[in-house]
Amino acid sequence: MNLIDKATRAREAAAAMTALTTEQKNQALLAMADALETHMAHIIEANTQDTTAAKESGITNAMLDRLTLTEARIKDMADGLRQVTTLADPVGDVLEAWELPNGLQVEKVRVPLGVIGIIYEARPNVTVDAAGLCLKAGNAVVLRGSSSALHSNRTLVTVLREALTDTAIPAEAIQLLDEGTREEVNRMMRLNDYLDVIIPRGGAGLIRSVVENSSVPVIETGAGNCHIYLDASAQLDMATNIVLNAKTQRPAVCNAAETLLVHADWAKQHLTDILTALTEKNVELRGCARTRELAPDLAILPATDEDWSTEYNDYIMTIGIVDSVEEAIAHINRFSTKHSEAIITESAENARAFLTRVDSAAVYHNASTRFTDGFEFGFGAEIGISTQKLHARGPMGLPALTSSKYIIHGTGQIR
Amino acid sequence: MNLIDKATRAREAAAAMTALTTEQKNQALLAMADALETHMAHIIEANTQDTTAAKESGITNAMLDRLTLTEARIKDMADGLRQVTTLADPVGDVLEAWELPNGLQVEKVRVPLGVIGIIYEARPNVTVDAAGLCLKAGNAVVLRGSSSALHSNRTLVTVLREALTDTAIPAEAIQLLDEGTREEVNRMMRLNDYLDVIIPRGGAGLIRSVVENSSVPVIETGAGNCHIYLDASAQLDMATNIVLNAKTQRPAVCNAAETLLVHADWAKQHLTDILTALTEKNVELRGCARTRELAPDLAILPATDEDWSTEYNDYIMTIGIVDSVEEAIAHINRFSTKHSEAIITESAENARAFLTRVDSAAVYHNASTRFTDGFEFGFGAEIGISTQKLHARGPMGLPALTSSKYIIHGTGQIR
Repeated sequence: MNLIDKATRAREAAAAMTALTTEQKNQALLAMADALETHMAHIIEANTQDTTAAKESGITNAMLDRLTLTEARIKDMADGLRQVTTLADPVGDVLEAWELPNGLQVEKVRVPLGVIGIIYEARPNVTVDAAGLCLKAGNAVVLRGSSSALHSNRTLVTVLREALTDTAIPAEAIQLLDEGTREEVNRMMRLNDYLDVIIPRGGAGLIRSVVENSSVPVIETGAGNCHIYLDASAQLDMATNIVLNAKTQRPAVCNAAETLLVHADWAKQHLTDILTALTEKNVELRGCARTRELAPDLAILPATDEDWSTEYNDYIMTIGIVDSVEEAIAHINRFSTKHSEAIITESAENARAFLTRVDSAAVYHNASTRFTDGFEFGFGAEIGISTQKLHARGPMGLPALTSSKYIIHGTGQIR
Repeated sequence: MNLIDKATRAREAAAAMTALTTEQKNQALLAMADALETHMAHIIEANTQDTTAAKESGITNAMLDRLTLTEARIKDMADGLRQVTTLADPVGDVLEAWELPNGLQVEKVRVPLGVIGIIYEARPNVTVDAAGLCLKAGNAVVLRGSSSALHSNRTLVTVLREALTDTAIPAEAIQLLDEGTREEVNRMMRLNDYLDVIIPRGGAGLIRSVVENSSVPVIETGAGNCHIYLDASAQLDMATNIVLNAKTQRPAVCNAAETLLVHADWAKQHLTDILTALTEKNVELRGCARTRELAPDLAILPATDEDWSTEYNDYIMTIGIVDSVEEAIAHINRFSTKHSEAIITESAENARAFLTRVDSAAVYHNASTRFTDGFEFGFGAEIGISTQKLHARGPMGLPALTSSKYIIHGTGQIR
């Protein structure tokens, strides 16, 4: 079946899904979860084809790990779907309601977005996670994963679609684009008449490519060059705890910190202490000239222009000395990916300036950047973390997968 | 000054505007309004250069009318700015606030979008209207009007920027791209590092071109192929009033109706009556085969495939007979531009099906589609009517020109 056929079927499925009840959608998700467990052996068999080919092509261990499905991971995916059934259904929520002077009753009501395209890398769990969230919010989904996960994704989608046949959600609500060609992605990104949005999930290169090439509206997610700024009045213990946590608790995630900015006055007293604590946690340090002068005994590499813009996702941190909260704000607004930033300070005034003027999705006063996460915020599972300003910003739970419409009741009103 | 310089200045101005008070923004808008009136003669002089050149190039009278500025129209633009000062300022509104189990205080707060690009046609009033709305919501604006309005726009922007010099809004918050080349628009649409959104305002061709070519996020506005469906139980008087109003009260606007769908049972009794009423209002009729059979005495042209998709913006209407509300919904979801549609019916069940399943920004029961409008909805001035589902849908008031951010206060929390 070709791309347009699949997109048409997704569109038709979405039209049929606007009137579904929460109960009907939850039943469908539970059927999908059960089916994954029933067909575990079959899924692992398909996945082995992908992993075998991947090993032969010599991919990294980290990538191989992400590609690999085990019984435990399939169970996790099924449990993830079951958890989505416990999330509140945003569809049908009345966001506003008012009466016009002429008697018209206006309601702004949450509705599904329609058809959501997902472009992602060789992580077969995204196939299931994304489908679950999209369907729960009443949307059809068109999936386009990496060609290196093609056997896994085909089998997963077959299992999920079969599970839907006895439910109120049409099987056609899940479509997989499985040509595995670049041309296919390019055509997908021009399907404005069929897709309401495309959400890319993956590394910076994938996201940039989708943003640059898609005429379908995109929600940009993920990249996190996060900053922590230690103001002159920062408490040493709190600052140390937060910096170590934000850098080293899980360096590979997008809400981990990459750059540490330090007020010059604080740096004179405490810079060596905090940088020593970082090196003891095996963090490689890069710094501006003043940083290297203040801590000559530590092996701090000179920071290049590129360092300030880099999301290391690793045990590396770049350190800069600034003379004011203003300078910190300007640095962050210049180099940040607008994900998450923190100020550590006892000054309410400086905190307010930072929180108001730093232009990022989540801004923290005296807390770690690691909290920017759908689960931490209490949203349950998330489809990603938006770093753009349109539609949704920060962790995106189910409401981010909805739109709204105006429903107006009259008694014959005309203008 | 080149494009990147202007975009950089807009970005810097936007950063400086995040902490402005409502009072400061209103004072700036009032200064802009006064300046327009003070410099009327100068503005009209510049406008005359544009209109003279336009007449020589032989544009239509309608286009010439839109391009022309008079004292009264400049006064209207100034009053429009003054009206924007009376609108509630959405920036700083706390949309949600909650405490996490670890004691973190999370607030979701409305913030300006940042820098808004506007691409528009030869209507100099858009220069002032768009700047006023963007600035009131705390945004900088990068304007790119038609080259045929270049003298008018340059003068208007000079006047507005001069007015800002003594206010809290930086003059650099208004930028005009005035090369007048296609290349300039193309480069503008790739300014992802500087513009947070582009809003095209104009005809279907302009909007399609921006949607297809912009890598900056776009809010699609405007096109309205609106439908009215007369269900079997529609009251004749109400149906006639609404159809005449929606088609003929102001046919050139986007919320005017273009297609009339009629249930076959109702058509047998009343079709000739309502079509006669339309022809008496000088509406040219096109119809499906059944329509033409039922009203053989009226000069109804056969409707082509193209007719069903066309926004005439004129005294033309296409008529189709359907056998059920289901068929009407399917027709509308296929051909509509997702703007505004109405069902006229006494059946609550059919109304509910239509309102739930028609996938448009505004859906009406027993009222004219002509109400889809920022002023009618009580939002005050609008920047346009969104026909996409991301970010904003339907008439866009000031809140559509904002984003949100999460502000989190802690006491040293780490994960």
